[in-house]
Amino acid sequence: MGPFRFLLLFFFLGVVAAESPQTLLRTMTQVAAASDDLYCDSWRLSVETNNARFWRTVPFRCREFVQEYMSGARYASDTDVVVDESLAFARSVQIANDGNDAWIFDVDETLLSNVPYYAINGFGTKVFNETSFNEWVDEARAPALAASLRLYEELLVSGFQIILLTGRNEAQRKVTMENLSHAGYHSWRSLIFRFDSDMGKPAVVFKSERRAGLEAQGFRILASSGDQWSDLLGFPMAQRSFKHPNPVYYID
Amino acid sequence: MGPFRFLLLFFFLGVVAAESPQTLLRTMTQVAAASDDLYCDSWRLSVETNNARFWRTVPFRCREFVQEYMSGARYASDTDVVVDESLAFARSVQIANDGNDAWIFDVDETLLSNVPYYAINGFGTKVFNETSFNEWVDEARAPALAASLRLYEELLVSGFQIILLTGRNEAQRKVTMENLSHAGYHSWRSLIFRFDSDMGKPAVVFKSERRAGLEAQGFRILASSGDQWSDLLGFPMAQRSFKHPNPVYYID
Repeated sequence: MGPFRFLLLFFFLGVVAAESPQTLLRTMTQVAAASDDLYCDSWRLSVETNNARFWRTVPFRCREFVQEYMSGARYASDTDVVVDESLAFARSVQIANDGNDAWIFDVDETLLSNVPYYAINGFGTKVFNETSFNEWVDEARAPALAASLRLYEELLVSGFQIILLTGRNEAQRKVTMENLSHAGYHSWRSLIFRFDSDMGKPAVVFKSERRAGLEAQGFRILASSGDQWSDLLGFPMAQRSFKHPNPVYYID
Repeated sequence: MGPFRFLLLFFFLGVVAAESPQTLLRTMTQVAAASDDLYCDSWRLSVETNNARFWRTVPFRCREFVQEYMSGARYASDTDVVVDESLAFARSVQIANDGNDAWIFDVDETLLSNVPYYAINGFGTKVFNETSFNEWVDEARAPALAASLRLYEELLVSGFQIILLTGRNEAQRKVTMENLSHAGYHSWRSLIFRFDSDMGKPAVVFKSERRAGLEAQGFRILASSGDQWSDLLGFPMAQRSFKHPNPVYYID
């Protein structure tokens, strides 16, 4: 905020103060909230474009903004538009029907939503707690992201081979399959987890290695869908990458 | 909008209609505007994350949204936050002081703002008109993006070699240098334009070739700043890439 805008603000607050102390307090709160909203919207953009990188928690001043974003119409709308762009690309592709045209999906915050977990765990304002998150995973109750399920169904019908590539551990295969099925996902060609030997690798390395393996098997990776840039960047890269929104956590 | 929400809407409009036709009309307009804002914000995110790709013009329903975004506080705030993230990275880097630590900038909508041109040319709702845009370039009157100038100055002081890599043509060198100087930029190490032999190449190819050339000369490309993904993607890639906002036009 430049000095000129500060002066304007003080002038404005002075006028309001002449009214009543209650009005002044209310106005100051509104001004602060508007300034937080502007900043937090810019912060969210910097997360979604990967300008931020390596961030650990949602900034304290953005805790209400992120909660509102995730709980309200905006997250659903953003996901809808990503899916519309994905479908526009899918419909433009000529499928070879040799069973090698692959579309890769990440799982968490791409196919499944962990919003019920984050809603009672501070929506990204607290440092990731692996123990409590794994307990939630074991419950296998994460719902589908509605728009992603719509995309998934159309891709299956169009003849894409669907490959799920998740940072979850091989030990979580059973609960993950149960959760995916319960949420409405089915008929994937392959579901790839981290082995113990992959632990400690950055996700971008692990996922790139697996994409290389898939290409070596003959797959053409036409698209990748993920909520983390580490789902999408690295080599080989999909022909098209679709970044799903996620202002709640970052995985390197 | 799901069928349930449609029903709710009609119920709501029915209640309002009982009041007066004017109120109904006003309410319908407000509902439509809110729905446009929600959609256009999601559309803008899909542009900034490169999910949209290959788009030609701002969707008609988003013309007012984009105009407000570019003219109001949001564009400035988004650019400010990109610059803050860029500076956080710049300050974390150990400069070798051998004159080989490079930071690459695109020019249009990264260092210079063409908002005065787009403000009288439909803010991205019209197909790009090369003739009228080149006339604007020849005037050399594009102002600096304030936040970018702040970044530029600190990078210079820190010892980064600043390289400008633009899609403009070599024939525009003189007016571009005049414009950059007039806007406050100075002391760049190199200013690279397209030669006639580069015309017709996608920007992502042209810019990658030039980055390869810079690396061959011994430069370490620590960062790239650009408003187009074609400034940032392709090989070799900078260690860090910073996507500046631009919902007005797309360059492949």
